[in-house]
Amino acid sequence: MNKKNIIVVGGDGFCGWPTALHLSNRGHKITIIDNLSRRNIDTHMGTDSLTPISPIQDRLTAWQFVSGEKIEFANIDAALEYERLANLLSRVRPDTIIHFGEQRAAPYSMKGVHEKRYTVDNNISATHNLLAAVSELGLDAHIVHLGTMGVYGYDGDGIEIPEGYLRVQIPHDDNKVVERDILYPSKPGSVYHMTKAMDQLLFQFYAKNDLLRITDLHQGIVWGTQTAETKLDIRLINRFDYDGDYGTVLNRFLMQAAVGHPLTVHGTGGQTRAFIHIQDTVKCIALAVETPFQHTGKVRIINQMTETHTVADLAKLVADLSNAKVAFVENPRNEAPENDLRVSNRTFIDLGLKPITLAAGLMEETKEIALEYAGRCKREKIPCLSTWSKHQRPGVIDKAA
Amino acid sequence: MNKKNIIVVGGDGFCGWPTALHLSNRGHKITIIDNLSRRNIDTHMGTDSLTPISPIQDRLTAWQFVSGEKIEFANIDAALEYERLANLLSRVRPDTIIHFGEQRAAPYSMKGVHEKRYTVDNNISATHNLLAAVSELGLDAHIVHLGTMGVYGYDGDGIEIPEGYLRVQIPHDDNKVVERDILYPSKPGSVYHMTKAMDQLLFQFYAKNDLLRITDLHQGIVWGTQTAETKLDIRLINRFDYDGDYGTVLNRFLMQAAVGHPLTVHGTGGQTRAFIHIQDTVKCIALAVETPFQHTGKVRIINQMTETHTVADLAKLVADLSNAKVAFVENPRNEAPENDLRVSNRTFIDLGLKPITLAAGLMEETKEIALEYAGRCKREKIPCLSTWSKHQRPGVIDKAA
Repeated sequence: MNKKNIIVVGGDGFCGWPTALHLSNRGHKITIIDNLSRRNIDTHMGTDSLTPISPIQDRLTAWQFVSGEKIEFANIDAALEYERLANLLSRVRPDTIIHFGEQRAAPYSMKGVHEKRYTVDNNISATHNLLAAVSELGLDAHIVHLGTMGVYGYDGDGIEIPEGYLRVQIPHDDNKVVERDILYPSKPGSVYHMTKAMDQLLFQFYAKNDLLRITDLHQGIVWGTQTAETKLDIRLINRFDYDGDYGTVLNRFLMQAAVGHPLTVHGTGGQTRAFIHIQDTVKCIALAVETPFQHTGKVRIINQMTETHTVADLAKLVADLSNAKVAFVENPRNEAPENDLRVSNRTFIDLGLKPITLAAGLMEETKEIALEYAGRCKREKIPCLSTWSKHQRPGVIDKAA
Repeated sequence: MNKKNIIVVGGDGFCGWPTALHLSNRGHKITIIDNLSRRNIDTHMGTDSLTPISPIQDRLTAWQFVSGEKIEFANIDAALEYERLANLLSRVRPDTIIHFGEQRAAPYSMKGVHEKRYTVDNNISATHNLLAAVSELGLDAHIVHLGTMGVYGYDGDGIEIPEGYLRVQIPHDDNKVVERDILYPSKPGSVYHMTKAMDQLLFQFYAKNDLLRITDLHQGIVWGTQTAETKLDIRLINRFDYDGDYGTVLNRFLMQAAVGHPLTVHGTGGQTRAFIHIQDTVKCIALAVETPFQHTGKVRIINQMTETHTVADLAKLVADLSNAKVAFVENPRNEAPENDLRVSNRTFIDLGLKPITLAAGLMEETKEIALEYAGRCKREKIPCLSTWSKHQRPGVIDKAA
């Protein structure tokens, strides 16, 4: 395999860190750019990863100890420090840039006007700065971006969600019909998801005008904590978020079960969402990076998810493992109470991905993470306090099932 | 008519200034917010309006002298000074906010990495700050935004461009077809146009989630300089840009004719574009502001243009008035060399707009602006020097017709 020179923007985060290790383990040369904003947000909110994550410097020392591989690190804010970003790109001249450098929690992005503005300003400027710098420096770097299934929205009219592009027919004069392949019409449900939809327009333009090679990975909700590499040393452990803003639905259920709290389901729990294990995330990214990708003037969009579940089904899965109760609370989000979801994920399956299923992996996650570190849990951080509109009462338990 | 309390963001600019005067003249209370960035860009580029525009303070004094109406002015950067913006909104509590506060020249937005970044960061943050502030303060203000026909792109497959939304059919399982009304799939041709396409996603989200009332006016290329109000005093005169970055195609032709330079047509001149006179712009905005608009969860999109022409036809029109020669030069833009364009503009026509045609208004523009102020023209500023990609040679004359 062709070893690549790779920059991972946001390489200290939940997806970025295990990705950096996995690619390093596969022999690629890795440089991490990160402004440590995820750690800073924890500091400001009084939250913390359930797992005891090490400082980035200790992480890198441990990785060199374990693997013999040296990962470079630069503390750069890609949104605010354009000159430093461009200087690093110019020096490293990467073959690939993996872009995780965005605020990635929907509830955080809806918390208040400060968080809304930070999410938009940070995510859009970081993405655009990267594109503008690659174009300005004339780099032939493949840009791999972490998008989200949430850009599609959840229309519920039964169409299978394609990988990025939708073929439509447009009725026209004299009963003629014009066909077009369009970017799937985006209906994001939070400020965070909106920024990823806006990113798509940035990518579309730079792929067409500047001939940049760009892959956008529309990822489902990630579950699981550890990968083969992060398990190699306690100092390499990945983060596990369970708080109301950054904890995804499954993590919050696992944590509630571990500390004897009812599993709080928003609304009826009829929302169907797409999921993927963190181990599969890093495999998918390696596949996207290592599969040759020629420029076509068009962004390559791939769906990065392996199974779908309703929120109520997830609660039941966790309850069955733990004897926890399920409680239905008012939904703080402005979303359809129930929806179907069918998603095409042919590209990665055709490339050989063998998914880890929830049914197979959930027990390990319960034992090795949730129960193992339950003593570090701050119970009061579990409820979702961010609301999508002002009249909502978050976290109120209506009835127990 | 119901008199409104109106904030005009960008009210010192080419469209903003005559809009502020027109609405003031119609009895509305006007507050202008502007950071004077258009004047600052002139200073940095060594360019200037052909017409001798007065400082904003003198403009406001003159307007009070002429009309008896006082327009308030605040020098606020809507992108960078959120707190000052929110404080002003909170104090004024406007019924309507008209948003012109964006960098609006496509060639400027392609000039270099600084200009690309400024255009994205300024336009997105200004738009989002306004939306976030209106939501945060709980204002029931109608937001009227100046979009652009350029968000649609110029696909050339013969479809009439609708007012914002396109009805499409999606082939589905078992020969079923699903119908959706979608936001017209956007294919912007410059960084500037891209920001307006991104704005559409901001508006879509805030209209749906925060129930904001938003009208987006997709405007054609504006020609003409004066309106009924700006003609009332020399200190009220509107700006006329003829430089390669900010001068629109018609202004540059008029200027070239006035100083005896060949009219420089990019490529074959087969690009078809939509146009509107500045007097009609201010009338359309008054119609959008004064027509009652109930909230529907959906952005109201209206096309603000009155006629279409090819660039070569425009050159011929100006050449016939002036005996100027036409010269074909390499096109610095990355765009289709030729395209058809049919646009629906039913909403404003149904509301009573009686357009000023180019055929009727061009002679006045030639005499009262281009010839009147020809002595102030800096000839070397006319060619377009911004290129869409690095290999292009802008402004080179290939052949004369």
